[in-house]
Amino acid sequence: MECDDTTESSCKLLKKVLDLVQEEHLVADADRSKKVVEFKHPRELQPLLALNIGQEGKSEEEVKKILEDVVKYSVRTGHPHFYNQLYAGIDEIGLAGAWLSTALNTNQYTFEVASVFSLVEHHVISTLVKLFGLKDGDGIFSPGGSMNNMYGMQLAKYRHFKDGKTEGIFGRKPMVALTSDQSHYSIKKAANWMGIGINNVVIVATDRFGRMIPQALKQAINVSKENGKEPFFVNATAGTTVFGSFDPIKEIADICEKEKLWLHVDACWGGTAILSKKHKHNLAGIERADSISWNPHKMLGAPLQCSALIVKHKGLLHECNSASATYLFQQDKFYDVSFDTGDKSFQCGRKVDAFKFYMFLTTHGLKELERRVDAAFSASLYLNKKLKSREGFRPVLEEPQCTNVCFWYIPPRLRKETESPEWWDEIAKIAPQLKERMITKGVMMVGYQPIPIKNLCNFIRMVNCCYPTATEEDMDFVLNTIDTLGKDL
Amino acid sequence: MECDDTTESSCKLLKKVLDLVQEEHLVADADRSKKVVEFKHPRELQPLLALNIGQEGKSEEEVKKILEDVVKYSVRTGHPHFYNQLYAGIDEIGLAGAWLSTALNTNQYTFEVASVFSLVEHHVISTLVKLFGLKDGDGIFSPGGSMNNMYGMQLAKYRHFKDGKTEGIFGRKPMVALTSDQSHYSIKKAANWMGIGINNVVIVATDRFGRMIPQALKQAINVSKENGKEPFFVNATAGTTVFGSFDPIKEIADICEKEKLWLHVDACWGGTAILSKKHKHNLAGIERADSISWNPHKMLGAPLQCSALIVKHKGLLHECNSASATYLFQQDKFYDVSFDTGDKSFQCGRKVDAFKFYMFLTTHGLKELERRVDAAFSASLYLNKKLKSREGFRPVLEEPQCTNVCFWYIPPRLRKETESPEWWDEIAKIAPQLKERMITKGVMMVGYQPIPIKNLCNFIRMVNCCYPTATEEDMDFVLNTIDTLGKDL
Repeated sequence: MECDDTTESSCKLLKKVLDLVQEEHLVADADRSKKVVEFKHPRELQPLLALNIGQEGKSEEEVKKILEDVVKYSVRTGHPHFYNQLYAGIDEIGLAGAWLSTALNTNQYTFEVASVFSLVEHHVISTLVKLFGLKDGDGIFSPGGSMNNMYGMQLAKYRHFKDGKTEGIFGRKPMVALTSDQSHYSIKKAANWMGIGINNVVIVATDRFGRMIPQALKQAINVSKENGKEPFFVNATAGTTVFGSFDPIKEIADICEKEKLWLHVDACWGGTAILSKKHKHNLAGIERADSISWNPHKMLGAPLQCSALIVKHKGLLHECNSASATYLFQQDKFYDVSFDTGDKSFQCGRKVDAFKFYMFLTTHGLKELERRVDAAFSASLYLNKKLKSREGFRPVLEEPQCTNVCFWYIPPRLRKETESPEWWDEIAKIAPQLKERMITKGVMMVGYQPIPIKNLCNFIRMVNCCYPTATEEDMDFVLNTIDTLGKDL
Repeated sequence: MECDDTTESSCKLLKKVLDLVQEEHLVADADRSKKVVEFKHPRELQPLLALNIGQEGKSEEEVKKILEDVVKYSVRTGHPHFYNQLYAGIDEIGLAGAWLSTALNTNQYTFEVASVFSLVEHHVISTLVKLFGLKDGDGIFSPGGSMNNMYGMQLAKYRHFKDGKTEGIFGRKPMVALTSDQSHYSIKKAANWMGIGINNVVIVATDRFGRMIPQALKQAINVSKENGKEPFFVNATAGTTVFGSFDPIKEIADICEKEKLWLHVDACWGGTAILSKKHKHNLAGIERADSISWNPHKMLGAPLQCSALIVKHKGLLHECNSASATYLFQQDKFYDVSFDTGDKSFQCGRKVDAFKFYMFLTTHGLKELERRVDAAFSASLYLNKKLKSREGFRPVLEEPQCTNVCFWYIPPRLRKETESPEWWDEIAKIAPQLKERMITKGVMMVGYQPIPIKNLCNFIRMVNCCYPTATEEDMDFVLNTIDTLGKDL
């Protein structure tokens, strides 16, 4: 099939998509009585989808059926009871921005082709530089936090050893990146790709709240040096994946300054607190970072992917990454080529991610976004208070640090038992079974995981994002559902 | 403003976007009399957009105005006379797929959250493995060709030296990547990031058609070894950026096999020829590659970003990249976790890029896509034939190899002059001036660049993509427009 834009019946498929978004409430507070997911096991789902790519095309009806089936069997990440990942629903504003930039099909490399979007990205980055309290700076939108963390490590490597750009790192003493035992695995992945090696990522101990211990960082730096290695990069995490812990950035910055190490702050998850007067204290010291990674597509609810890297040192991104391709960045163009920002990125073609975020920021205004952030934190505090006083629930930590609330569910049969190692082995089996039940019923989705390094077996990690706004009733629903599903386990 | 999905007036902004797509013909053959761009210099455009992010939000009317302005001042990449980059317009099918997956806001890491889209990506990758003639294989969608080229280099490094994943590459002999002087700059960027260094990217000479010379590759490998370096990776380009040249993959594969080097084929641009019985001969030997990068968002016209990496060695992506994060890839899940594919990627969160491409493939069918590919090649052949016989136009090469057609325009005052170095200096100034005129008038956009290594001064690079379909009239328009705009230069 092919649609004709010139007739009355034009753009039928796009209309169909819009209808699905409306009818299925994909971008607005969903009907809570609906399922979060119509779960099918992979091998059950395969025949239902009947995927096939053939020589002949499909009719309009067949294509509409595909679109309907995709919605039917997909997880509703915008459902109020989707708490499974560090992101959730999107609203109409962000989606409208994403749809328009997708329809314009623009590549972000030069002002020549990305005129409007070049200026938009520049404006958003400048806004973020100020928001995070940097005096000056630069930045870029990249495809995700892992990429941004690698950008940070690459900038650090370049500043540490500029000839590495041309000569590589062969023949050097092993370079060492330091990060906490609760930090994201992308730091290791970056070290793998960058030739540094996972074993040269030195893992710094955290306190029992999952926050990097500055004294342990100091020691780790010294030990690395004594072992003949060269520390060059420290990653502080602002909002760890599981606990939502905020590393003490100020103390870490003091150490990095003294040791002349690059300080990168992985604020992909917790960076959203910067929008709240009440919660930004968690990020105190972030303005001293050399680079910051923040994913507005996580807690804040910008559409995926929306991931900003902020760099304190103007010009360094360009210096570190430029390749001066003559076919793209001609210097004899008739306009001011300083607006061609593509050579500061690793990517050549780059999707427009800044516009949907601009739409989101300018349309809502910062005040509304602050309200949403505060609401997400409040819901988590409420949940924590409730579960502490409820039989069968045990918090992993006394208080949540971000919007993460971690806890074990203890079914009635285990409540009076001695808490032996065998008892904990039993508890470890509860979360996966609860997960199976909530998914197969489709009532709710919540994550779980162990933290082996802290000797913590499988526990539930609840997270609240800014959209849809979680209510106290939602939090009660979470506890009630777990109790109902788990009481016979 | 906030839209309410439960009233009749819901989703006004999404409707507004749809209206703009229809009224402005963003996804269908545009009215050729319209401008490709309403060009404004950066500093003229800034006040027109009046970008601002404040405490208070915006009204519905203000937001609609933003959307309108974005369309007004953006380059129409879907306009039939947009020939500026190695990509162009998208059609309704691809856009509908992109819009729906964006609305569902799904992250691709696990089956748990990406159920449908996990299966879709798997199906598309399997289809591509067959399409490129591999017996078996694996793959992934990544954010662009540069990223895919780095994936290829990373896989090569891992296979060459598995301990590098943990220990890094310090203390090794310098590793060498080989690529032609016409290959994409992302190979150098990858070497920079990966700690290999740009100077360890050995540039292999090309023939005058821009194709890697196999004998020169052999020599370069030998010289590298004699210099105490370790070759590990060869990149062959299938469709170079400027000439559209296809490196002789078979001969290169013979050398790689003998020397035990990883063969990566950067088919980001020319890979689309695989869909055509008539033109796939250009890719002969690609089935012998260890990894292949292809961007369906380029010539074929899938919406940005759509970039596939195909790997011959099943399991290697996972082995090379896995970090086994316990919070995401729990092994005690209740479904078959072999469908959780996220740990084989560098990225953690990953946008769904496969679905829009699946929609595109299944809806059109391969036969229709073959027709489009053949039409793009035909238009380029026609253009080449015409310009060869027309006064004032001089082809850089006798025949196009891909859909790229490269030529100089020689204005009347220079036509009878002696072709001295000064004459060529004058010719070099023509393309930028032509570009300025075509953009300020908004009639057409075509790229230009020099190739200093081949001693070729600024020339025009015309490219045809599959959508909108270029006609012979369009090609005549290109030549006529250049002649009209340039005759007094």
